[in-house]
Amino acid sequence: MPRYRLIIEYDGGPFRGWQIQDNGRSIQGALEDAVAAVNGAPARVHGAGRTDAGVHALAQVAHVDITKTLPPGRLRDALNAHLRPLPIGVLAADVVADTFEARFSAIRRHYRYRIVNRRANLALEIGKAWRVPRPLDAEAMHEAAQALLGKHDFTTFRDTECQAKSPLKTLDQLDVARDGEVIEIVTSARSFLHSQVRSMVGSLVWVGEGRWRAADLRTALDARDRRACGPVAPPDGLYLVRVDYARE
Amino acid sequence: MPRYRLIIEYDGGPFRGWQIQDNGRSIQGALEDAVAAVNGAPARVHGAGRTDAGVHALAQVAHVDITKTLPPGRLRDALNAHLRPLPIGVLAADVVADTFEARFSAIRRHYRYRIVNRRANLALEIGKAWRVPRPLDAEAMHEAAQALLGKHDFTTFRDTECQAKSPLKTLDQLDVARDGEVIEIVTSARSFLHSQVRSMVGSLVWVGEGRWRAADLRTALDARDRRACGPVAPPDGLYLVRVDYARE
Repeated sequence: MPRYRLIIEYDGGPFRGWQIQDNGRSIQGALEDAVAAVNGAPARVHGAGRTDAGVHALAQVAHVDITKTLPPGRLRDALNAHLRPLPIGVLAADVVADTFEARFSAIRRHYRYRIVNRRANLALEIGKAWRVPRPLDAEAMHEAAQALLGKHDFTTFRDTECQAKSPLKTLDQLDVARDGEVIEIVTSARSFLHSQVRSMVGSLVWVGEGRWRAADLRTALDARDRRACGPVAPPDGLYLVRVDYARE
Repeated sequence: MPRYRLIIEYDGGPFRGWQIQDNGRSIQGALEDAVAAVNGAPARVHGAGRTDAGVHALAQVAHVDITKTLPPGRLRDALNAHLRPLPIGVLAADVVADTFEARFSAIRRHYRYRIVNRRANLALEIGKAWRVPRPLDAEAMHEAAQALLGKHDFTTFRDTECQAKSPLKTLDQLDVARDGEVIEIVTSARSFLHSQVRSMVGSLVWVGEGRWRAADLRTALDARDRRACGPVAPPDGLYLVRVDYARE
């Protein structure tokens, strides 16, 4: 029974998140419906990252074991045909070794958060970015962010419903850069806690507005207390950009 | 009575087009409702270009005469507040001379057309680009496009309902370039005929697919016959990018 790796783009807006829910549409559920239609039998689709409701992906990675042997390009096209008109695109399908696990084989996850820093309403990016009307100092945000790099107890930046056993994570990258009215925050780590990126971004926006200094961000981290966190940024601006695996 | 120039971004998807219609929402109508609410009296909003249903704008230009004298930043913010949650953003408002006419003072209009050339469904760009699944030769498209530059009778690339008095237009730019799976077509002219950009783009896609050679595009132009046109590209991928005015 061949194992396929899928690379998936989606608009998280109309979904309750990646993971199958008792009520409401999920990306995983939509993919499993498409796989069942193509395969003629149900199959579990395992994703690399369980994105929250409203969070987008440019290249989520998943694996699925399918009874039928299909050329990967045929599988990709058939899944896309079944998914239409949902905002989910299967960018690629490949046959992989049956030791490949989308979630557990991943060695690094890359996220991007998009802020549009302007007073005007969003028009073309409604649901795709966070509009912050007050002027933000992106350089101050970037400098403050560097204190979060490395291995820390990220309890402050973790949703209270997070199910990870440990709040210890190692943050590899947290860069903030402005390009015109757009501020992008790029971050990577082996794995993240629930709501960690959105919690860090919301706190960094307080730094950008001058409400917090860099030292306040560090104090919040050191508090290891969820109540020390700034606001949690909305899901609209968050994108799972890429997942890395060790070369085989 | 001060005249204001407005710079406006919008997602054309939910509208019947720029121009007020007897039935259905228009961008002009939404702006006039917002102006009436701020001004306390109705006022006509004149746009630089009457974009079709589904066509977007990054920076449409309009002018409006308002009875009240308001600081331009206050007008911009008040219009945005009234327009929310429609996908229309007033990026800027300025006081201009009462000789300024958004439509008639314009000396050049710039449009961009966005094609995503891939087999996978659109997800994050549904309604914002045209997905063409067959591989396109962007270089062949660019080379063929150059035959349309200059002054021509563009009857072939003109909607039969176009109300312009003459089919003669001077095309200044028509560039086709690929960046990964995205092909962008950038074009500019003093003015365009109704559906001219989408008609040229659809015909260029036939060139990109190898269905037409460059000579066929020229033959279509020379035919001065609407029936010689290729397909008309959908509005989803079309953006009014900028309008130029002479320096005062």
